[in-house]
Amino acid sequence: MMFATILKIDLTKIALNYQKLSRLLGKNECGAVVKADAYGVGLKPVVETLTENGCRSFFVATLDEALTFRSWSKDFNLYMLHGVKNNEEAFISYQHNIIPVLNSEKQVRVWSSFCSYKSLKLKAILHLETGLGRLGIQKSELIKIMPDINNINVTHIMSHLACADEPEHSLNQIQLSNLKYYIPIFPNAKVSLANSAGIFLGNDFHFDLARPGCSLYGINPCKAAYGELHFALSIYAVVLQKKILEIHQSVGYGAEHQAKRGDKILIIEVGYADGYFRSLKNHGYGFFAGKKLPIIGRISMDMIALDANSLTEVEFANVSQVEMMGENISLEYLASSAKTISYEVLTALSKRYKRIYIK
Amino acid sequence: MMFATILKIDLTKIALNYQKLSRLLGKNECGAVVKADAYGVGLKPVVETLTENGCRSFFVATLDEALTFRSWSKDFNLYMLHGVKNNEEAFISYQHNIIPVLNSEKQVRVWSSFCSYKSLKLKAILHLETGLGRLGIQKSELIKIMPDINNINVTHIMSHLACADEPEHSLNQIQLSNLKYYIPIFPNAKVSLANSAGIFLGNDFHFDLARPGCSLYGINPCKAAYGELHFALSIYAVVLQKKILEIHQSVGYGAEHQAKRGDKILIIEVGYADGYFRSLKNHGYGFFAGKKLPIIGRISMDMIALDANSLTEVEFANVSQVEMMGENISLEYLASSAKTISYEVLTALSKRYKRIYIK
Repeated sequence: MMFATILKIDLTKIALNYQKLSRLLGKNECGAVVKADAYGVGLKPVVETLTENGCRSFFVATLDEALTFRSWSKDFNLYMLHGVKNNEEAFISYQHNIIPVLNSEKQVRVWSSFCSYKSLKLKAILHLETGLGRLGIQKSELIKIMPDINNINVTHIMSHLACADEPEHSLNQIQLSNLKYYIPIFPNAKVSLANSAGIFLGNDFHFDLARPGCSLYGINPCKAAYGELHFALSIYAVVLQKKILEIHQSVGYGAEHQAKRGDKILIIEVGYADGYFRSLKNHGYGFFAGKKLPIIGRISMDMIALDANSLTEVEFANVSQVEMMGENISLEYLASSAKTISYEVLTALSKRYKRIYIK
Repeated sequence: MMFATILKIDLTKIALNYQKLSRLLGKNECGAVVKADAYGVGLKPVVETLTENGCRSFFVATLDEALTFRSWSKDFNLYMLHGVKNNEEAFISYQHNIIPVLNSEKQVRVWSSFCSYKSLKLKAILHLETGLGRLGIQKSELIKIMPDINNINVTHIMSHLACADEPEHSLNQIQLSNLKYYIPIFPNAKVSLANSAGIFLGNDFHFDLARPGCSLYGINPCKAAYGELHFALSIYAVVLQKKILEIHQSVGYGAEHQAKRGDKILIIEVGYADGYFRSLKNHGYGFFAGKKLPIIGRISMDMIALDANSLTEVEFANVSQVEMMGENISLEYLASSAKTISYEVLTALSKRYKRIYIK
């Protein structure tokens, strides 16, 4: 048996989260955003779990991600959020039944001329800018490209919320009303707006197709989601060495931490190359036998030293793995300690973890 | 042609860095640390470049990394820094000609009993603790396990420096003298101490086999290295959308940045899921046509918005890719802006970049 640091992913919790979001959406469709390798969780097992639970529409960011998806599944609606940048990408997308989200004048023109060339009215989602100021077509641009749009089968119009995690933020209502302005212009198109937090903003924001991402994995996208979702991930780091220090000495690079003779220390196999941020030095801890084991010294690329003085002799003798995230150490805690958001902690998780999927 | 964000790796610079380090080491051997997928750069192309330049000894961290290496090369000395944790790992290492670094009493016992079982005196490096307080065997532990060590072909004794980047730090001389204490105990073993910064500490620290890592890629491990190494990496992000704002509006999540009507904005395809840290929001910039294009608004998972007001109309019309790291934006700048070290910026680089290797 190879004994490695583990990232455990409970797919049953991802299923529960999807079911919960679907119930909130009622008759409207619940898609799933699985870009960035399903936020670092693993594209294929996540997609398999979601399809078993009724999901039929998936969103990735790039053409590479879409082709990875299509390499093992020809089924389901597969939308590519970053759209087609040129004719070659349009051709590849068409070949592999990938539906582009068209984000700009240029992308509309690329897809439209490809449709003309093929004499086919091919599917696309039209991304309209309503206030995020990121991707999306602005109002006067839309007027210019209406002839091109008429070449395309616009199945949905979509937009993306900037402040859905702050229900009181005025921009939510502004974006909603901006989107509603466009709906009569595309009477045959469905509408897509809500990301994870948008689903918790209520029915007004649901429309025909929602696009949750982080909430599938149990990240709380907003206060209203607390207690509603199940966090699906845990990390168990393998112990590389147990030491009882023979002398007073420093621990780690830069000799920042002074330890004492007799101190119990665990060296565990996880480091910043695994996406465990260096900035967690003064906040992170391991968890074993009901006890917190604080990080001591700097976090190395592949290793962390833990203060194990709180462990009894028997516990110290028995410890072979230490929780570094999970039931006792929340993703939210790690994220706020690293002064970032949960999403970044997830997407930073390295490929080096041995991933174990629980069905 | 698929048009993706690119991580360009100039292997000729990695070759130059290796040659430089080899020259500094004179007759002593220059190995290479290629753990964590060669610090995120890409294991196979880096190893191929180094072997073409005479490197014969490679260090990885884990058994998985060692097996990846052995899946395409049966040659060269391959050392596994995290050692063997149990009998099964010992067997796999033996099968694949992987030489463990033995870091603890337990690891020595595992390897020793495997040697007895095979009736072979198998190679290993013995890792002795001299002051880093991380992995390594302490003095009184060593005495206890001498009988086990006698079963093993100890090709090298090694230790690792805690403060080599600070030449004046007293711990450097302490670690040196602690290591020298062990040398007469292992008269047939070679000695390995220097990491990248250790090489720049001078001849006293070189010994028989050096283990540079970061300096191969052009990271400066210490002040003495400035100007001596060639940084090998650059990032060019593809432009997803160019916009000239039609109204005053905010840009990005949380509506933090207020932009004006007429502002030129580029939305580029790189985000924190690519390892471009969210914390770079107020410091990071793109570079095009000799101009800095500051990041505006929050960094998203897959996208960043850049202020392109400084570009002329012609430049704005022509821009399709923007430098985000390289000749004009140093790794050191990104690391210090993100309040971390260059190593973490490297190892965070995602697999999503299209890697282009220059030979």
